[in-house]
Amino acid sequence: MGEFELLAKVREMLPPPGPRVRLGSGDDAAIAVPGGATATSVDAIVDGVHFRREQMGLAEIGRKALATALSDLAAMGAEPGEAYVVLGVPADLDEDGCLELLGGLAAVARETGTALAGGDVTRAPALSLAVTVVGHAPSPERLVTRAGARPGDVLVLTGELGGAAVGLEPQPRLAAGRALAEAGATAMIDLSDGLGGDARHLAEASGVGLRIDAGALPIAAGVAEVAAATGRDPLELAAGGGEDYELLATLPPERLAQATEAVSGARDLRLTAIGEAVAGEGVEIRLPGGGMLEPTGFDQLA
Amino acid sequence: MGEFELLAKVREMLPPPGPRVRLGSGDDAAIAVPGGATATSVDAIVDGVHFRREQMGLAEIGRKALATALSDLAAMGAEPGEAYVVLGVPADLDEDGCLELLGGLAAVARETGTALAGGDVTRAPALSLAVTVVGHAPSPERLVTRAGARPGDVLVLTGELGGAAVGLEPQPRLAAGRALAEAGATAMIDLSDGLGGDARHLAEASGVGLRIDAGALPIAAGVAEVAAATGRDPLELAAGGGEDYELLATLPPERLAQATEAVSGARDLRLTAIGEAVAGEGVEIRLPGGGMLEPTGFDQLA
Repeated sequence: MGEFELLAKVREMLPPPGPRVRLGSGDDAAIAVPGGATATSVDAIVDGVHFRREQMGLAEIGRKALATALSDLAAMGAEPGEAYVVLGVPADLDEDGCLELLGGLAAVARETGTALAGGDVTRAPALSLAVTVVGHAPSPERLVTRAGARPGDVLVLTGELGGAAVGLEPQPRLAAGRALAEAGATAMIDLSDGLGGDARHLAEASGVGLRIDAGALPIAAGVAEVAAATGRDPLELAAGGGEDYELLATLPPERLAQATEAVSGARDLRLTAIGEAVAGEGVEIRLPGGGMLEPTGFDQLA
Repeated sequence: MGEFELLAKVREMLPPPGPRVRLGSGDDAAIAVPGGATATSVDAIVDGVHFRREQMGLAEIGRKALATALSDLAAMGAEPGEAYVVLGVPADLDEDGCLELLGGLAAVARETGTALAGGDVTRAPALSLAVTVVGHAPSPERLVTRAGARPGDVLVLTGELGGAAVGLEPQPRLAAGRALAEAGATAMIDLSDGLGGDARHLAEASGVGLRIDAGALPIAAGVAEVAAATGRDPLELAAGGGEDYELLATLPPERLAQATEAVSGARDLRLTAIGEAVAGEGVEIRLPGGGMLEPTGFDQLA
């Protein structure tokens, strides 16, 4: 089966794309009619680097590839639009395996209203997925970067920390991201590296410091048990673990009530104030007892 | 060196992006303000599948990755806009190697006015590049698909066939593609699989037949020598060989003069009428002596 047949079968799993996509996969390029501004992000996952095939179902790998890419659009407050998928197929993955994997990806596309507008399928030594996602907004000013936090802003977090550590599947917080953007978020980022590392990215891009109250951090159910079983501190596990894909944002304090209501209305999701932006630099996670948690995270090649 | 530093170094090789890109790589997503319509295409190349690292310089691999992706935009008649690059780095490729490779890619970006607006760098078992390119047009109707050829249209080809077979680097025919679109091309495709295969794609998408006059085919200098040395027919080598990245298009006959002038004016490039579209289906390549050349090509997983 050639790539066109494979991608055509996957598109059969999806509703027809909305009016923005004028021509989908099958020609030299897809044709779309964007609105005022686009947010575009690309994410790749490779077997043995970002996941291990023997530890993860194929559909789950497909879900993960698109969900992590869409999480970047959530962090911009963009409406999800189109996805373009490069699938690298190793010799031991057959057609049914490809369809199972792309079926997982298609399920996330369906759930989020993302059109699968194009792709490329190639042989490769290891299973790999590179996903480009395009999101939309009425104007560039409506998109939220990492760089707009101001001293005095309140720091908020969607959902709970540590979900990935206890095995929950990541959900791109698209509705919450749009709600936060509309409520006046000044800066936003999704937690892919862990709270400490991503807070540092936001602080550096905005030129502010961030003070986080560790006692306020919402911790997912089950984290305490996993921490106890592995001899780790639950707070460290929750704040240092990556891939939660919750949103971390800053807001003027007077916008907090509106944002909390908008986020909980959008997806029955909790929004928690966990700290504030201050003049200066750096990230401090203050423990209830008075100590400090070292902000961890990584931003090297992964 | 992390991926941000690597991509930042590559962006230093480029002029600042035009006004369309409002925010480049380094945030959760790039922000752009498109015009009326976008054409988006994604292409991946993998060591051992699409090239062999021991037979190709790193800069040349980088050039090839972006040039082949942009060729799809040329075939739509789109203006090149942004590129998003996923680089898969094997253990034996060091930072200097990555920069040499991305330097080749940046050179093509510079030559074509393409902005490198984002990317992802990951470890991978083999060197691989997945490139998403976004092109622009004032409206979707100004982009040329494969599907609009009508019986009676003249079939034209830019440049010469067989360049890849004699070792010439592919050039995305962006200016020629826009010139053909403006001159009223009804259908267009770039030659990645070879004349026979790609002509068949265009014929099938348009629901027409194509008759090609083999005697009219423009053959690149050197093809005869390579054919003689390898005991092959020069015409077969030129018409069956892939990766020439010339454009094959159909036009109403009354537009041929305008198109020829526009293409030669755009990039000092020859436009040759090589046949016509007819009612029916299939591709025939008629030899001057009266025989027929079997249209070859491949469209399987590559």
